[in-house]
This record gives sequence, C-alpha cells and structure tokens, in this order.
Amino acid sequence: MSNNMPEIALERLPVYLNYLRSLPEVGNTYISSGAIAVALNMGEVLVRKDLAYTSAVGKPKVGYVTKELIFAIEQFLLCNELKNAILVGVGGLGKAILSYNGFEKFGINMVAGFDSAPEKIGTQICNKTVYSIDDLQKTVKQYNATLAVITVPAKAAQSIADKLIEAGITKILSFAAVQINVPPSVTVKYIDVAGSLAVLSAINN
Amino acid sequence: MSNNMPEIALERLPVYLNYLRSLPEVGNTYISSGAIAVALNMGEVLVRKDLAYTSAVGKPKVGYVTKELIFAIEQFLLCNELKNAILVGVGGLGKAILSYNGFEKFGINMVAGFDSAPEKIGTQICNKTVYSIDDLQKTVKQYNATLAVITVPAKAAQSIADKLIEAGITKILSFAAVQINVPPSVTVKYIDVAGSLAVLSAINN
Repeated sequence: MSNNMPEIALERLPVYLNYLRSLPEVGNTYISSGAIAVALNMGEVLVRKDLAYTSAVGKPKVGYVTKELIFAIEQFLLCNELKNAILVGVGGLGKAILSYNGFEKFGINMVAGFDSAPEKIGTQICNKTVYSIDDLQKTVKQYNATLAVITVPAKAAQSIADKLIEAGITKILSFAAVQINVPPSVTVKYIDVAGSLAVLSAINN
Repeated sequence: MSNNMPEIALERLPVYLNYLRSLPEVGNTYISSGAIAVALNMGEVLVRKDLAYTSAVGKPKVGYVTKELIFAIEQFLLCNELKNAILVGVGGLGKAILSYNGFEKFGINMVAGFDSAPEKIGTQICNKTVYSIDDLQKTVKQYNATLAVITVPAKAAQSIADKLIEAGITKILSFAAVQINVPPSVTVKYIDVAGSLAVLSAINN
C-alpha cells in the first residue's frame, strides 16, 4: 500500500494511528490536521502531507471524519490483513516481545519463537511455541510467515538473517546492533536501544 | 555536541559507529566514505555529509583514519562522558533492557529500575536495584540521572513522564505507544516495536 510514500513519512503513520485510536469518543466526530499537529507537536503542513498519501479526504474547515481517517491509515498499514510474524532469539528481550499484546491491532500475528538452546525448545511463551533454529525453514513455511524479529546477539544476526531469507522471510526487524546484508528483495529495519539513548543524550535541548 | 546536525542525521551516527567498531583490525587503517556507504547500503554523499558534522577530516583518495573517525563519532555522541540512566517499568521488556550490556559503549550507565509492584521493589536485575516509584524524585537526584527509559503500559506513561521531569530527567526514551506531552526543555524519543513491524510490512520491496 505504500505507493510512493517516503519511508520517513510511512514511519509516522503508527504515531497518528496510536493517537487517533487513543481518542476517547470517536463516533461521528471530525478531526483537523491542525488539531493532530498540536496534539503530536508536529507541523500542520507535514501532517496534511502525510495523511494525503492515505485514502482519507479532509473537508475544509472541519477536517477528517475521525473514524474514516483511522480506517484509511489502517488500510495503508495493512492492519486489516493478518500477517504472521516469528521471532528468533528467545532471551529476555525475545520473551518480552513474544509476550507483547500490541501486535494484533496492526494485523500482526506473532506465531512462534526460535532458539538454539535445547532447554528452551518446546517451551511456550504466552502460548507461542519455541522451536529449534534447525526447524526454521520448515516452520516458517508452515506458518506462511513473512515478517521476522531478530533478538539474537550481534555476532549471530547475519547467519540467522540468511536462514530467515532462505525460509521465505522478506521483512526483518533486528534488535542486533550490527548491519545485516540482504538481497534487494528483502527489507531490514533496525531498533538499537542503546544507540537511540545515545542519540537522545546528544540532542541539544 | 549536536551543533546544528539534523536529528535524522544524528540518528545515523550509531549505525556508522557500530559498523566501524565491528571492523576486525583498526590499527592505522583508512576507510573511505565510499566503503562505508557500500557496507551500509547508503548513498556516499549522505555518508560524507553526515560525517562532516563530526570533527573527523577525510583525506582525498584514502578517506578517514578509521580510529580517528571512531573517536570523532564517539565524541559527537558523548560516548566518553558517563551519563546515568534509569528505567521505569520493570516488566519483561524493562528487565531485558536493565540486563542489556550494550549501553556502556555509548557512555551510558544504566543505574536503577523503578516499579510500583511491591514484590519487585528491593530486588536486583543484573546488579541494578529496583526502587519504588515513590522514591523516584529522591533516587534520580541521588544518581544525578538525566536519561530515562519508560517501559510502562501506555496509560501510565504520561504520569510517569511528569514525575521523571519533576525529578530532573530531560531525555526520555519511551516504549509506550502513546504520545507524551513534555515542556520544550525535555526531549522524548519513541520506540514502537509493533508500529515498526507494521511499517516494515507496508513497505513495498
């Protein structure tokens, strides 16, 4: 659905969506790009430009019908198409993500974990089975998963990514603080908690 | 140190730093912006522009002295100035972050956790004591902490942020998928794992 929307703008859509969904009473109310901009501390022009990529149509003076805007963003982010995701690396962070209940509202079904430690294999984390990495290929195909989260140590990230891609995964979200090389048909995004905190500390207030 | 560097560029510095630090043998080697660009799958002009904000000076044809470039980025990200950070919300994610050993290389010292659950208070996670949220003000000041990570449920994030700011925290990294309102003297960054995965799934390959 991301027809020509720059990735940087696409990344703001969950922010709008979280905000709009947090509004107490949606009903048939309207919301303007100006009101969204104020609430999210963003520029109004930017908000309007971002939302113009979706199918939502604002009316002069009043703005968007709130529930139509929510639906348009959900549609753009494919929230209404169920996608199966798996996670590799069932350590503390992996367990926390497998246990997180915020994926569903984005249409993401976290279905299974993978680890190499024998004592973890066969256990359940929030009703998700932990499989052996040796079964990655087979299990990813069984679940028809296309999304994967990597929470393994940095030194293992590339080889895990290679295995994931071989199994059919095309989108990877990695918490390992290392660059992963992938073919052009695969997209990787990174979350670096320590790096983000370092950037934050370097920003001048 | 972020003299006029756009935040979007600043956010790439940990990526360069992680990569440069991962190089096997630094010694007195040189590295060019072109080589960095290829390794990180980025544009060379962008790399050169980003690195120009730091004090590193590249030489024509050969590039940067690798260890000087590492040092320049470290300086820019204040890696050599120890900063104390605290975390609020010692659930699964909070525990994983308190246990993470990747903060030190960015000069960040994760010193303590806070929670409201009586059974957690006084426990230790990787040698970090979990304090009561009632002791936030006192303990943040004791540790002289300026950075905080929020891993509480969305509905508690704003009130925790208010308490943190009152205690002297000026930089907040929040995992709660909700907008937090702060005064202009405080900066908040967000990590939304589910939102990131949704964005990833919406990107066209």
